[in-house]
Amino acid sequence: MNVTVGRRRRHYRTVSFDARRNAVVLIEQRLLPHQFKLVATRDVKETAAAIRDMVVRGAGAIAATAAYGLAQGALAFRGGDLARFDAYLDTVLQTLQAARPTAVDPVNAMNRVRRRMQAGKTVEERQNLALEAAQAFADEDVAHCEAIGRQGAPLIRDGLRILTHCNAGWLACVDVGSATAPLYAAHAAGRRFHVFCDETRPRCQGATLTAWELAQQGIAHQVIADNAAGHLMQRGEIDLVIVGSDRVLGRTGEVANKIGTYTKAVLARRHKIPFYVAIPLSTIDWRLDKGTAIPIEERGEEEVLGAWGVTPAGRRTWVRVANPTTSARNPGFDVTPPELITAIITPVGIIRPQQLWSRRKELDPEAVP
Amino acid sequence: MNVTVGRRRRHYRTVSFDARRNAVVLIEQRLLPHQFKLVATRDVKETAAAIRDMVVRGAGAIAATAAYGLAQGALAFRGGDLARFDAYLDTVLQTLQAARPTAVDPVNAMNRVRRRMQAGKTVEERQNLALEAAQAFADEDVAHCEAIGRQGAPLIRDGLRILTHCNAGWLACVDVGSATAPLYAAHAAGRRFHVFCDETRPRCQGATLTAWELAQQGIAHQVIADNAAGHLMQRGEIDLVIVGSDRVLGRTGEVANKIGTYTKAVLARRHKIPFYVAIPLSTIDWRLDKGTAIPIEERGEEEVLGAWGVTPAGRRTWVRVANPTTSARNPGFDVTPPELITAIITPVGIIRPQQLWSRRKELDPEAVP
Repeated sequence: MNVTVGRRRRHYRTVSFDARRNAVVLIEQRLLPHQFKLVATRDVKETAAAIRDMVVRGAGAIAATAAYGLAQGALAFRGGDLARFDAYLDTVLQTLQAARPTAVDPVNAMNRVRRRMQAGKTVEERQNLALEAAQAFADEDVAHCEAIGRQGAPLIRDGLRILTHCNAGWLACVDVGSATAPLYAAHAAGRRFHVFCDETRPRCQGATLTAWELAQQGIAHQVIADNAAGHLMQRGEIDLVIVGSDRVLGRTGEVANKIGTYTKAVLARRHKIPFYVAIPLSTIDWRLDKGTAIPIEERGEEEVLGAWGVTPAGRRTWVRVANPTTSARNPGFDVTPPELITAIITPVGIIRPQQLWSRRKELDPEAVP
Repeated sequence: MNVTVGRRRRHYRTVSFDARRNAVVLIEQRLLPHQFKLVATRDVKETAAAIRDMVVRGAGAIAATAAYGLAQGALAFRGGDLARFDAYLDTVLQTLQAARPTAVDPVNAMNRVRRRMQAGKTVEERQNLALEAAQAFADEDVAHCEAIGRQGAPLIRDGLRILTHCNAGWLACVDVGSATAPLYAAHAAGRRFHVFCDETRPRCQGATLTAWELAQQGIAHQVIADNAAGHLMQRGEIDLVIVGSDRVLGRTGEVANKIGTYTKAVLARRHKIPFYVAIPLSTIDWRLDKGTAIPIEERGEEEVLGAWGVTPAGRRTWVRVANPTTSARNPGFDVTPPELITAIITPVGIIRPQQLWSRRKELDPEAVP
């Protein structure tokens, strides 16, 4: 999307690749919204760390980062032994996958890259194919998000008041975003609406990233505490909810997403407010058959015990909010059952979560078991 | 309750009165948990400001503060003209009431003080009665909270995992607390349990005040993001919810409390988890006949856009978290309907919210219309 930095407005992707330096180039999302900065990871370890430490986050964005990271790893390999090359790639893949265990997109993306590599007969051919495949994955993610926008835009009518949780914007993808794609498409079509951004504790991606994105694109919005959505729904001030996902189970229609998503779905159901999940196809997991099997990352307690922000003097710092002798629980994700979800907005259509499995051949001919 | 400051452990009330200085003495709650400090307000304006700016907060605590504030105002009056004295007291009452419009306890408390004052035949007699009545109100609040503890303690069985929202602890009352009273009573009886404190954005009274209180009393607890309770309930990790209230409608059983309470009640109902509201009798509003008539304070947006905390260097500061060009909505309270509430724990018994009205004579013989 277009970003204004200083006086200059230009187009950026969240994730790209610098072939000359064999580096993955990322927007340093932990500094947003207070500073816009690009960083380059120079090897697989740094790329995995960027995923783990949330320099880059969001399903599509970490998938592209992992795909590029696999190519980066492949390109760093020295020698011509195919068996050694393959064994080495296994460890690269595991390193990148372990950086964010709840998400399925990185695994799907890396599996796709590896399948494409098989056409190569030498290490060098496979190295080149790896980069081509990673590039194709990133381009496809953009195309998918644009298609999500076309599919979902008709839902975003003039005057609607829309709730979103966390950031499933272009910063969570390579570009355009999943949950935000219909918003950007409707805005481009001249429709006017209002977005409530859940601040999304503990990391506040709604208050920082989604609010920054919407401000950059000139879309009317306000941040609310995660506690406030129930009250606003009760008073009739929210018409539609749209969120992204880190993993949708193709077999059951269950949706894993940022902690708090399930709560919003329960509230939306009580108030008969449509609840949509927007995803690229790489977010679908065709393998797992129950939501309780999705690994839920328990993150460090510091996130809950304090907050990152900027002091009135302009200094970025973490502050401890909670009682100093108290500890915290910090599950990073939750799972929303299909009966609470109105529909899934995909690049190829708007589909009830229970129908994903019967339409699997059409949705993902390559990955379906 | 007992507090350890440095090496000394002694008993404090949240609110008390210094007759020599005609001052209300308060624990400065905005500095907790990082600093324990008493402050004295020297006139009604300062007392109202302490309520409005949340030096003191919580239904029982601000009720006692308002009662003492009314006495403080009465005692500051010079002259013997009863009509002028009464007109002056009207403005004192309005000043104190306007400081926290959602809560009914201050109004109930001040009305009680004024009724008791009528027995006086001179300004001086009424001044003395005002202080006596305010003192009696504060003592009664403590007795009520102790009675809530006796009533509610049997619900807190060994091994339970209990969720609470915001702070309805002794800091929210004159002493002992409402939602915490059954916990303190059960703990004193030797039962062992675990408390999850919702951090309670935007002001984080759960992470700061409730966590501090529980730590001071040696009760096992953890802070969670407000987003996490739904997930924990889904995984069977919460057995009971207990909260306080700023206003319970005696006619309908609706409960106004800190923003986010309604959300937890909706989640608890979905998961068939008992949801209790613990209140002193002064929290009951016998007049209003619908929850939508309760004024919901819309607070300043800075609370949502950032957080107060302590830097790693030990300096207390506010940090801006949200995107700098973004604004916020900040409703401070919400209203939970009676069908989501298992029961109300009162000093005189555990009562279904729908039964308050039929038992009004027994609950509050003085205030009932």
